[in-house]
Amino acid sequence: MVIGIDPGSRATGYGIVEEIGGRLYCREAGVIRLESGSPLEARLVTLYDELIEILTRFKPEAVSVEKIFTAKNSLSALKLGHARGVILLAAAKIGIPVHEYSPLEIKQSVTGYGRSEKFQIQEMIRTILRLDGKAAPDASDALAAAVCHIMSGRTKAVYDRALEREGVLKR
Amino acid sequence: MVIGIDPGSRATGYGIVEEIGGRLYCREAGVIRLESGSPLEARLVTLYDELIEILTRFKPEAVSVEKIFTAKNSLSALKLGHARGVILLAAAKIGIPVHEYSPLEIKQSVTGYGRSEKFQIQEMIRTILRLDGKAAPDASDALAAAVCHIMSGRTKAVYDRALEREGVLKR
Repeated sequence: MVIGIDPGSRATGYGIVEEIGGRLYCREAGVIRLESGSPLEARLVTLYDELIEILTRFKPEAVSVEKIFTAKNSLSALKLGHARGVILLAAAKIGIPVHEYSPLEIKQSVTGYGRSEKFQIQEMIRTILRLDGKAAPDASDALAAAVCHIMSGRTKAVYDRALEREGVLKR
Repeated sequence: MVIGIDPGSRATGYGIVEEIGGRLYCREAGVIRLESGSPLEARLVTLYDELIEILTRFKPEAVSVEKIFTAKNSLSALKLGHARGVILLAAAKIGIPVHEYSPLEIKQSVTGYGRSEKFQIQEMIRTILRLDGKAAPDASDALAAAVCHIMSGRTKAVYDRALEREGVLKR
């Protein structure tokens, strides 16, 4: 079981993906929203506590997050960094290894194309995990990070067979 | 008692300042260095745990940190944000209110001049807190943040009298 996390200064998406017998299942997906009215440090406590609760409940074997290379500006990078630091801390505190993947790697692994659009990721995640139309679109990037980690390494072959079984065109 | 914290992605300075009878005392000052070899999440755990230990031991009534407006680039802002997020989390977890001051406010309150140089801050901090020559220069900015918080608000008048008593020229 792998948790993908998509950090944000206002909302952090997460998605738990499990692979059973070559099929991928979404166990839970959601968004931790941080009240914009409360002080930053209170919002970070909410984020930390909710993540600790989720990590303790599911005990995933890995945390998968997107590597960040750029930001609109240094102020938004700083804000994002606050949330990301707390996320990495929560993972390390529970003892779950963190794996980072570039946006290119995540897109490549989910859609087979490193420059795919956001809606293509969402559509592919919906197909791979057999989510109904309403399933947390905000958590798509988090689920994509989780799927990327599962695809990388030893489960790659299993996933390929699963894709074939689901009738999803493999590119 | 106030703790000033100077966040950094490789080293975080801290300084505990106490005001007794109009005089300011440095209770402890130091730097939490983060091993550059270990993974980021392990370094954040070290930072968090050491801060929790310090905050629990001294139980300061306030945490004072510098507000950040700029960074060399978005990548260094992101790294700094990771450390800063963990620092704010530690303060909130222990229940100590966080106060932020701009670099201008800190310089103004310590040296009386908002554009003073780093060595002037160090020299003034040494004088105000009666530190010997070798006292943690890396923690000067942290001590300055603590002094700034003590000077702001109700202790301002007390501090002014202390400065006079120490024979430090008030500008």
